[in-house]
Amino acid sequence: MKKSIGPKAILFPAPTLIVGTYDKDDRPNAAAVAWGGICCSSPPCVNISLRKATYSFGNIMHHNAFTVNVPSEEFLRESDYFGVSSGRDHNKIEDTGLTPVESVSVHAPYIEEFPISLECRLVHKFELGLHTMFIGEVLDTKVDSVCLNDRNTPDPEKVRPVIYAPGNHKYFSLGGFLAKSHVIKTWNT
Amino acid sequence: MKKSIGPKAILFPAPTLIVGTYDKDDRPNAAAVAWGGICCSSPPCVNISLRKATYSFGNIMHHNAFTVNVPSEEFLRESDYFGVSSGRDHNKIEDTGLTPVESVSVHAPYIEEFPISLECRLVHKFELGLHTMFIGEVLDTKVDSVCLNDRNTPDPEKVRPVIYAPGNHKYFSLGGFLAKSHVIKTWNT
Repeated sequence: MKKSIGPKAILFPAPTLIVGTYDKDDRPNAAAVAWGGICCSSPPCVNISLRKATYSFGNIMHHNAFTVNVPSEEFLRESDYFGVSSGRDHNKIEDTGLTPVESVSVHAPYIEEFPISLECRLVHKFELGLHTMFIGEVLDTKVDSVCLNDRNTPDPEKVRPVIYAPGNHKYFSLGGFLAKSHVIKTWNT
Repeated sequence: MKKSIGPKAILFPAPTLIVGTYDKDDRPNAAAVAWGGICCSSPPCVNISLRKATYSFGNIMHHNAFTVNVPSEEFLRESDYFGVSSGRDHNKIEDTGLTPVESVSVHAPYIEEFPISLECRLVHKFELGLHTMFIGEVLDTKVDSVCLNDRNTPDPEKVRPVIYAPGNHKYFSLGGFLAKSHVIKTWNT
């Protein structure tokens, strides 16, 4: 039996994504976002939502560029710190000892230790309310070579992404393989 | 060591979301999307991306409304079917025996058997390329009462959402609890 709980911003799974930017003085910053993901296959585009008050918001507006990094479980503590503290008050990447690397295709830093990094050129900005959505066109994807399968594609079981559960303030791991997709072309009960 | 694999639409985790719509004759339809998620906390908004060629695209344009449903693992086969076949050729919901229920707040059907359903009013439409992004304001959230915790919030371990891995054509389950979020306020190595 279904129950109405009113208008909520709750959906599972949400990702744990780390947005990399430079500030106006070219100091690298990292921020965790759960509102984001792929939004277009061609050209490949990614969306992230940020509040105007965040340091990353100003950084993206200044450089028209950002990276979207997928941390592995191993970096859960760093990722949580990137989501709680502000780049205005802390040199977050330096604090954690992680390595910011300047992207090849845009002026934004990616995190060397994180298994997947998307280099993004800002192409749209949409005001939605408390959050503003930034759309970035993915100009390159950098993947830790140990996380690539034999078709040169990142393998989720090697990446070990962190799953966020909105409304619960909890992180989860990726579970087991369930099935291949795009298989049930006709319905036979 | 990181390797460049070019511009790709790959990020983990992606969700498995089922979009509910009525066609122009008010026949309910369901479509699976992986490009989507929450994009604003206030007002609560959700984004989904669809190709223009899809049946759901026309349905949303016709009624300015849709639902976003989170299927549990139990309905993986139905969800995959909703992603492969078109509502133009099949009465997909009827085929599977699932139950479409008209939303209270918008003219779109949700799936009774799926643990979470968001009732959404179309508020924006953005052309991105192959995909068009629809932004819906969440007017109500319906949750299976057995999936609610004691704070009236959906519990991910009861919902058992399906995680999609783009680039791999694979579905995964939700794994184990890792940690509470918003905990690491200052960095102490």
